Amino acid sequence: MTETTTTRPWRGCVFIGVSLDGFIARPDGELSWLTDPPAREHAIAAASADTPAAPAPALEWETFFPAIDTLLIGRSTYETVLTFDPWPFDGKAVVVLSSGLVTDDERVTVARSLDEARSILTDRGARRVYVDGGQTIQAFLAAGLIDEVTVSIAPVLIGQGRRLFGDLDRDVLLSLRGVHATPDDGLVRVTYDVIPATVGP
Amino acid sequence: MTETTTTRPWRGCVFIGVSLDGFIARPDGELSWLTDPPAREHAIAAASADTPAAPAPALEWETFFPAIDTLLIGRSTYETVLTFDPWPFDGKAVVVLSSGLVTDDERVTVARSLDEARSILTDRGARRVYVDGGQTIQAFLAAGLIDEVTVSIAPVLIGQGRRLFGDLDRDVLLSLRGVHATPDDGLVRVTYDVIPATVGP
Repeated sequence: MTETTTTRPWRGCVFIGVSLDGFIARPDGELSWLTDPPAREHAIAAASADTPAAPAPALEWETFFPAIDTLLIGRSTYETVLTFDPWPFDGKAVVVLSSGLVTDDERVTVARSLDEARSILTDRGARRVYVDGGQTIQAFLAAGLIDEVTVSIAPVLIGQGRRLFGDLDRDVLLSLRGVHATPDDGLVRVTYDVIPATVGP
Repeated sequence: MTETTTTRPWRGCVFIGVSLDGFIARPDGELSWLTDPPAREHAIAAASADTPAAPAPALEWETFFPAIDTLLIGRSTYETVLTFDPWPFDGKAVVVLSSGLVTDDERVTVARSLDEARSILTDRGARRVYVDGGQTIQAFLAAGLIDEVTVSIAPVLIGQGRRLFGDLDRDVLLSLRGVHATPDDGLVRVTYDVIPATVGP
């Protein structure tokens, strides 16, 4: 049984902060990551003396994808892409991270571990790597191998599913690079740079 | 062991859609909520013939809070607010949703159930109700009692904690009303109207 404003005189409203990964507090309720974030360099503020007050737009697919030279995907993403016709990655290197995949597909290179994937990317001269697939993103993020994140936030709550972000053993600090909304579909797209973790003193 | 771009020649990048509650797919991997959303009215497009292409800014606390006449909070939020000095809700009605709270605090009205809370709000002539606290928000949202949601997305991944949104037995469709970024702290604030669930034919 749901209720709409047409059948009652008041509007229920929410005004709340949330981390990009969907949390409103730490397990103990702690909020300083929201209310008192650590001093950090902000890409927008630091970009130049001419930086306007408003941020730049987020990245667009049409400029993002052509600038990618290599794809790094997990096995399930690879198996999904195999169903596409034509193969969507012509002209780009494709590395599949999978401990068990056996394939004679010459369009891809299989990496058996995250360390091997990292070595392959470096050895092959990758410059701009599109990391895709939930588990692969989580593994690369936890290993400090993600530098840039663009999310398109859809105007819907689906209640259950796979999570984009997973557990982390430390906070990942982000620097807002750009944001824009597309009014026709209600998407809010945000691009962040990942702030590299500092090594202890 | 973390890795930064200064020690390797390539940048790992992500470009992905995510629902507002942090999911990238349904449990079975289904994506139509992102790629093929149902036809819906968009507040931005429908507001008026003069609506600009870019959305309005999200709500600001300075205009949101004064327009609130009633707070609806859970017990733990109430107990947190009790530690504030002075009481921050002078001039506003406060309803605490709690099955067990016993109090002689004359500043608040205790509702023992969601149904009772709803009745109290209606009977007291509430017009604009600020629903706060994770569990309370989830309960009101699941019951179709939330009409407007403003989130401030912090530029950080904290990896674990309490979730803003919980399980739902149906999708909650949202209509983007406004968005803006605050470059000094990297927050992206977004205001949505909740699209009322339609009753079946």
